[in-house]
Amino acid sequence: MPTIDINCDMGESFGNWTMGNDEAVMPYITSANIAGGFHAGDPHVMRETVELAAEHDVGIGIHPGFPDKMGFGRRTIDATPEEVRDYVVYQLGALTAFAQRHGVTVEHVKPHGAMYSMLSESPDHARAVMDGMLEVDEELVYLATDMHIYEVAQEVDGVTAVFEGYVDLDYRADRSLIVEQQLEDRDPELVADRFVSIATDGVVEAANGEEIDVPADSICIHGDNPNAVEILEAIHDRLEDHDIKLASLPDVVNSS
Amino acid sequence: MPTIDINCDMGESFGNWTMGNDEAVMPYITSANIAGGFHAGDPHVMRETVELAAEHDVGIGIHPGFPDKMGFGRRTIDATPEEVRDYVVYQLGALTAFAQRHGVTVEHVKPHGAMYSMLSESPDHARAVMDGMLEVDEELVYLATDMHIYEVAQEVDGVTAVFEGYVDLDYRADRSLIVEQQLEDRDPELVADRFVSIATDGVVEAANGEEIDVPADSICIHGDNPNAVEILEAIHDRLEDHDIKLASLPDVVNSS
Amino acid sequence: MPTIDINCDMGESFGNWTMGNDEAVMPYITSANIAGGFHAGDPHVMRETVELAAEHDVGIGIHPGFPDKMGFGRRTIDATPEEVRDYVVYQLGALTAFAQRHGVTVEHVKPHGAMYSMLSESPDHARAVMDGMLEVDEELVYLATDMHIYEVAQEVDGVTAVFEGYVDLDYRADRSLIVEQQLEDRDPELVADRFVSIATDGVVEAANGEEIDVPADSICIHGDNPNAVEILEAIHDRLEDHDIKLASLPDVVNSS
Amino acid sequence: MPTIDINCDMGESFGNWTMGNDEAVMPYITSANIAGGFHAGDPHVMRETVELAAEHDVGIGIHPGFPDKMGFGRRTIDATPEEVRDYVVYQLGALTAFAQRHGVTVEHVKPHGAMYSMLSESPDHARAVMDGMLEVDEELVYLATDMHIYEVAQEVDGVTAVFEGYVDLDYRADRSLIVEQQLEDRDPELVADRFVSIATDGVVEAANGEEIDVPADSICIHGDNPNAVEILEAIHDRLEDHDIKLASLPDVVNSS
Repeated sequence: MPTIDINCDMGESFGNWTMGNDEAVMPYITSANIAGGFHAGDPHVMRETVELAAEHDVGIGIHPGFPDKMGFGRRTIDATPEEVRDYVVYQLGALTAFAQRHGVTVEHVKPHGAMYSMLSESPDHARAVMDGMLEVDEELVYLATDMHIYEVAQEVDGVTAVFEGYVDLDYRADRSLIVEQQLEDRDPELVADRFVSIATDGVVEAANGEEIDVPADSICIHGDNPNAVEILEAIHDRLEDHDIKLASLPDVVNSS
Repeated sequence: MPTIDINCDMGESFGNWTMGNDEAVMPYITSANIAGGFHAGDPHVMRETVELAAEHDVGIGIHPGFPDKMGFGRRTIDATPEEVRDYVVYQLGALTAFAQRHGVTVEHVKPHGAMYSMLSESPDHARAVMDGMLEVDEELVYLATDMHIYEVAQEVDGVTAVFEGYVDLDYRADRSLIVEQQLEDRDPELVADRFVSIATDGVVEAANGEEIDVPADSICIHGDNPNAVEILEAIHDRLEDHDIKLASLPDVVNSS
Repeated sequence: MPTIDINCDMGESFGNWTMGNDEAVMPYITSANIAGGFHAGDPHVMRETVELAAEHDVGIGIHPGFPDKMGFGRRTIDATPEEVRDYVVYQLGALTAFAQRHGVTVEHVKPHGAMYSMLSESPDHARAVMDGMLEVDEELVYLATDMHIYEVAQEVDGVTAVFEGYVDLDYRADRSLIVEQQLEDRDPELVADRFVSIATDGVVEAANGEEIDVPADSICIHGDNPNAVEILEAIHDRLEDHDIKLASLPDVVNSS
Repeated sequence: MPTIDINCDMGESFGNWTMGNDEAVMPYITSANIAGGFHAGDPHVMRETVELAAEHDVGIGIHPGFPDKMGFGRRTIDATPEEVRDYVVYQLGALTAFAQRHGVTVEHVKPHGAMYSMLSESPDHARAVMDGMLEVDEELVYLATDMHIYEVAQEVDGVTAVFEGYVDLDYRADRSLIVEQQLEDRDPELVADRFVSIATDGVVEAANGEEIDVPADSICIHGDNPNAVEILEAIHDRLEDHDIKLASLPDVVNSS
């Protein structure tokens, strides 16, 4: 029985500014990537997001970013591996404190935006971050958005990594993603078909019609997609028929 | 045998700007109050300060402040009890993550500057912060800078509080402190006399010559005092003669 | 022929987070209070807001706030008069630079949120800010939100102040405003009636039915009100019948 | 009679953290590059630095940086040309407001740290910034730290650029600078010799003994050099003998 996780970025509001649709999306996912307060989020938003995840029994992870709210963490800051590691450790710790209250543990680390890209391009930065995360908790799962970083993770002693796939974006044949400037409505049935295809067979159809391998144990859904809830409902509607089990990251790791 | 802690604010550098004299002072103290990155400090400074404390086997605590680096956390921000609680929990968690690496635990919470004053004046804020700290770890000690807050702490279920005294500032007869605009050299012998007097008898001479009660189990030393090291050496020179034992906060709590 | 200004807070988006409805509202107003980048706004948002105002020939003013994006400038920061003055001068200068490009001048200063309240309660702070604003440009108009600050402004040499009224909120009989937690739809016809009443007779009906004096030369409209545009259209529909002329602040000052 | 400017970075303190030695250095220089509040400085520091410059009749310019105090503006942020332009315009405007008070005008723009490097490497970014600066004031001088950016400046319509040389760092034969990790004492006589050589002949001896062209109309002195004042005194001691006249940037431009 295939077991897969659905993860989604959460807690990206800031002070009086809201972003995303966390309350509507949370019931459908198994892992919440919670903003760490550097690119988005703040202590109060973080607490509320942890509460919301706990209510729905959703696993939580830190979604750490560069200290750049003005750029929403989407601009590379030319920081050293040690600086980036310390940004991740700091944000991870903050989230952990809020998690204690609900007796839940932080399960994973998924770097955001330009930090994700930097780690993917610089193995030195990636290793530093993974070492930092292991210092805090050896059970943490690194949620890997592409194969470069997934392979680096395989080589770092002690790191458990999970590869994630995308179903609300199109893949190119080389398994890179076609990122849209503006998120748009996606056909829920097409997205659900892809979900099933990755969950059961580890493959998906790329934009050019070619079938490509996407050996993912987690699927990332963009919660700010205008029809994210509709997409998630379509996915949930398929689960029973295809004998797919949803589970958060530690369970996915243990089941594979 | 009287057992007492010496605490000092640490880790208040920020990026390229340095403050204090942490390396010189750390060998002489038993508890380091480490800035949480809101009023001062940053993730890299926090890591280095935790490392330095661990090297010298000094207990660590969070020194959380308001999110106001421009004002160094010395200006009240009219935040709600819940907001202040969340600022403390966030900073406490961040420090905890860095502490894991050295297998040490965060032992105490000592709010900084205007946050300290706010808690002292508003029991609602104080209780919210103490509740937040207990959510994270029930063993944490609240380091109380005045009697108002110490008394509030007595009333909050589950909080262990330690009252701290000052020897490098003068007390008024009502046990309020005469805070200088500019820190100045202090006579090390006078300061050491006061230390012994508080440690052994729980009293000290106020500015008007009156003897007042200062039932402190910890003494705060200002590390940015120009002759802080000289003061600390004078204190250490007295310990043996007076059978005073230095210990960090949990040991002080257990011994009393 | 009564001449009156309509002012609205603008440019309160920040990075990737949007707020308000600036493009829809700008065509209907005569003065835009543009966020200075401290409580909201950023350099890029500021430029775009100045451009939008220039396109619609709307007068611009600085809407300076406390350096507290997390609290949206709505929490008092216990800063000195000199600090607050310097925050205003800094933000005012920034806006002026963007205005140069369009050959327009910054016409007014309207402090935001908790800074407005602080100035209203502390004449020392109010005077410091007004002195700072005169240092930069003696022609600047201070847009006064209540009578306290309006009266302080009368006493500061060289300050031109304009008193503003509200029509999308209810007044109490003592001319204080009933501020709602959540902005709600307002009856456009009622709001437009109030606008005409203040513009032509300087009076409005308070919540208790009493007629009170509101000698305003400018009306503040909340652009984030869900039906702000409908309200503004209703106001514009009355102008001709009542011979009311809209004009930005300097013209209003000259006409009175 | 050779006319040359001496410029120095100023106003890089922040809140409670001090940096540099502005009061001691200001009497010896002709142009102060004042931090804009993004990489360093704040509104209050900016005001005090403008006051200090005005007292000593020193020309002022903006020293804009990336919005990254934690990294002191020394890390590239992958921002667009338009974003960088808007950061410069914003900081330039803020400084201008403080300058009004003393009836002085902002004379020049000298980007800091990683922003300087970005402009030097990306002509698109450099042109955007220069266009932004001309929008604010066409008389502004762009202080160019290397030949790349100096040449870009020649091609932008309406920009006046001045090339600056260094005498307290060593040049390589290719006119690149050998930047030390730690600023160290420099031999004041050697530094003063170099100053005279650049001011009178536009040449200096590189580290390998070769004489190279440094056609500079301004010399940058590092005010945080431990013996900056001694160096500046040695330079001033040579002026009369060599008939060198010090002048701020607009006068240097007019005299050449």
